[in-house]
Amino acid sequence: MAKAPVLTPQADDFPRWYQDLINKAELADNGPVRGTMVIRPYGYSLWERMQQELDARIKEAGASNAYFPLFIPQSYLTREAEHVEGFSPELAVVTHGGGKELEEPVVVRPTSETIINEYFSKWVQSYRDLPLLINQWANVVRWEMRPRVFLRTTEFLWQEGHTAHATYEDARDYAARILHEVYADFMVEVLGISVVLGRKTGRERFAGAINTLALEGMMRDGKALQMGTSHELGQNFARAFNTQYLSKDGRQELVWQTSWGVSTRMVGGLIMSHGDDNGLRVPPRLAPVQAVVMAIKGDDAVIAKVREIGDRLKAAGVRVVVDDRTDTPFGRRAVDWELKGVPVRVEIGPRDLEGGTAMLARRIPGGKEPVPVDGIAELVTAALEEDQAQLLRESRERREANTADVSTIGEALEASSSGWARIPWADLGPEGEAKLAEEAVTVRCLVAPDGSVPDSEDASGTLAVVGRAY
Amino acid sequence: MAKAPVLTPQADDFPRWYQDLINKAELADNGPVRGTMVIRPYGYSLWERMQQELDARIKEAGASNAYFPLFIPQSYLTREAEHVEGFSPELAVVTHGGGKELEEPVVVRPTSETIINEYFSKWVQSYRDLPLLINQWANVVRWEMRPRVFLRTTEFLWQEGHTAHATYEDARDYAARILHEVYADFMVEVLGISVVLGRKTGRERFAGAINTLALEGMMRDGKALQMGTSHELGQNFARAFNTQYLSKDGRQELVWQTSWGVSTRMVGGLIMSHGDDNGLRVPPRLAPVQAVVMAIKGDDAVIAKVREIGDRLKAAGVRVVVDDRTDTPFGRRAVDWELKGVPVRVEIGPRDLEGGTAMLARRIPGGKEPVPVDGIAELVTAALEEDQAQLLRESRERREANTADVSTIGEALEASSSGWARIPWADLGPEGEAKLAEEAVTVRCLVAPDGSVPDSEDASGTLAVVGRAY
Repeated sequence: MAKAPVLTPQADDFPRWYQDLINKAELADNGPVRGTMVIRPYGYSLWERMQQELDARIKEAGASNAYFPLFIPQSYLTREAEHVEGFSPELAVVTHGGGKELEEPVVVRPTSETIINEYFSKWVQSYRDLPLLINQWANVVRWEMRPRVFLRTTEFLWQEGHTAHATYEDARDYAARILHEVYADFMVEVLGISVVLGRKTGRERFAGAINTLALEGMMRDGKALQMGTSHELGQNFARAFNTQYLSKDGRQELVWQTSWGVSTRMVGGLIMSHGDDNGLRVPPRLAPVQAVVMAIKGDDAVIAKVREIGDRLKAAGVRVVVDDRTDTPFGRRAVDWELKGVPVRVEIGPRDLEGGTAMLARRIPGGKEPVPVDGIAELVTAALEEDQAQLLRESRERREANTADVSTIGEALEASSSGWARIPWADLGPEGEAKLAEEAVTVRCLVAPDGSVPDSEDASGTLAVVGRAY
Repeated sequence: MAKAPVLTPQADDFPRWYQDLINKAELADNGPVRGTMVIRPYGYSLWERMQQELDARIKEAGASNAYFPLFIPQSYLTREAEHVEGFSPELAVVTHGGGKELEEPVVVRPTSETIINEYFSKWVQSYRDLPLLINQWANVVRWEMRPRVFLRTTEFLWQEGHTAHATYEDARDYAARILHEVYADFMVEVLGISVVLGRKTGRERFAGAINTLALEGMMRDGKALQMGTSHELGQNFARAFNTQYLSKDGRQELVWQTSWGVSTRMVGGLIMSHGDDNGLRVPPRLAPVQAVVMAIKGDDAVIAKVREIGDRLKAAGVRVVVDDRTDTPFGRRAVDWELKGVPVRVEIGPRDLEGGTAMLARRIPGGKEPVPVDGIAELVTAALEEDQAQLLRESRERREANTADVSTIGEALEASSSGWARIPWADLGPEGEAKLAEEAVTVRCLVAPDGSVPDSEDASGTLAVVGRAY
């Protein structure tokens, strides 16, 4: 009798595989209020690592963290017309506080452009105060009709950057800098996801922006996941909140702004980019646990040896856990670490002690082999480097193999059944885009022929990358 | 004509000094919704450092971070009778979501015992799952009638730990471990605040707890600030949520629990413990900026020198900022760094270059003197160590000098006008406590005669520490 698979195989039912993995690897549970989620410790440790890596890059880009209130007066949202239209259907509204009905209801922030501009308009006086570069790590709420854990949740965790600049060019360049130096660098180098960078069409733009830059990842089922966005807000919010500065030549000018964010949705992207039928596979640079040293049996000498190896790996800079919970069967623990996607397992039993060997199991390429304990730290570090490169290579190859260059809407739809299509934007245009949308296929982003971000929609040779999306 | 003071002097009006400092040092602004606050970048950097130091200690104590939803069904809160009674008057209630009235209103979490128990009851099955040690960093909302920035705000940031244990003793010991190894260690060694540790009386206990341990700091106006609490919850929430485990001998048992938290209120405690008429004084171990190297004038050689010194301090492990904004007058910048409480300033002008010297200004003891640039890193590191010790010494001496041992309620009230009183709990008792409360004087905590935490209210020799509190 064949062993029952731990997870529903991806090929059988990808959404069910995703949900199975999240349950079995103990990443998250559904919350009691529709669309909310409980992020369990292992799931949260993935998010914490994402935060650490991103926070360092955000600070390197000159932004400082701050914190703005959760509650926004309803009237703020209405000041920017497109913005309120975009967010109204998703708002959670507090009508009672401290046992009384409130005079003005407050909304739970769906994003913070409005409340932040209220303060920017106080803090910014002169050109000397610019650029003002702020980031916050926060929870936001957007009422979700079709929730899915990590991907679309009523409450999610994110960072939102908000900046004000003296000129259009400075704001434009900063939005692009965040896209490349913060988001793309993190997603490619740490998450190992070969994202496509591009600009959104008018239809897909953020409510209140003049331009939205985005990073799109291809998941293992060929669908797209928007992994992050960086917006040029122009002077829309500055006008609504009167965010002005005194220029060097003594004139009052409106600031130019950007906003940009990535969220816990990236955890979903990580799962669907790298996970396989045995569970998650976490890229080593992200992994909260890069290696686990497992005692096969509760023999004293074995326990001493796994601890010693744990210390050696730690000294070599590896994020390591020693698993000596030998009252739980070895097989069950091994399956659990596999589900959690820990890149390397070092397994030690009584017989290994004699030979001075250990089993080195590799989650990412798969397989295991006996290795001498002596050089274990070098072997593990080398394995982690290889694995990081392998995941990125797989991600890039999958995306390239599943992206078709097409010239008609029919071909674009066909390609979208299993992957993406690239089609000249001049041929597609907003009308073609609307036709695709009837079939739930969207323009993920516009790219230049060389794969870079085009300067405008109209730039010659601009291609639309289209596909189905989460 | 005397120079106008930057801040209202403490002796003139302490609350106004506090508010002045928060404005002038750009720590925080009031939010638009009553009682909320905007934490500005410098204020937030203080909180970030608190988070880093605490998070490391929490993980060292074995707890893992996780994240539970902001929204709690109203019905959860009603399951633990004392808990709902304690929190009902402070709740913010969401009645509308996604454009519709909700069938069941949801409350914005005032604390998370209830929602966490809902999940603990699913996750905990066997004694092998215990202890379960969880922490979360989150925002919480308690509608505040008399708000004051950082001290009492409708929304605040905090960490809340929640644990489940197999036995009463294990839970009791863990609550005490958090009090000592996480909170007291951080507050004494990093914040430099000589907190008193004790247990709360029944009157002051957390709603739903069987015992509340607390850390109380004396502010510079002699009032007390509760800096943190660690609760033994007994089996109250376990009973309400049926959080059970299968014991080693095969019986279903309710778990024993703890919860514990500290919040952005600590920023207020930091200000009121160490601040003086010139601004904040930040203890070096906490300080996001430990030293600033200032160019007095925009001379190329001076700029080169301050950058070189900045690099040397950074290499010596000092958190340093180079201030070469010479388009802003030097005096204004110096006052600003003083307001922000940066412990050490290294000031360099053209004349210093010739002599190979710099001015070393010390915020904590005060004063400045010329020093040779050659040994600057050693001088700065030594100064930071001295300053850390000085702030703690000042805090301890102030608390001791302003705490009177008394034996009557009248004396306790008198002592409370400028500090604290210690009075035998056997003499005071709940009735005396109620009388003090009529004068807004409360029992901050009960301590043993040797200053340790008493095992029970009834322990012989137990003293009540009483005072006015924030």
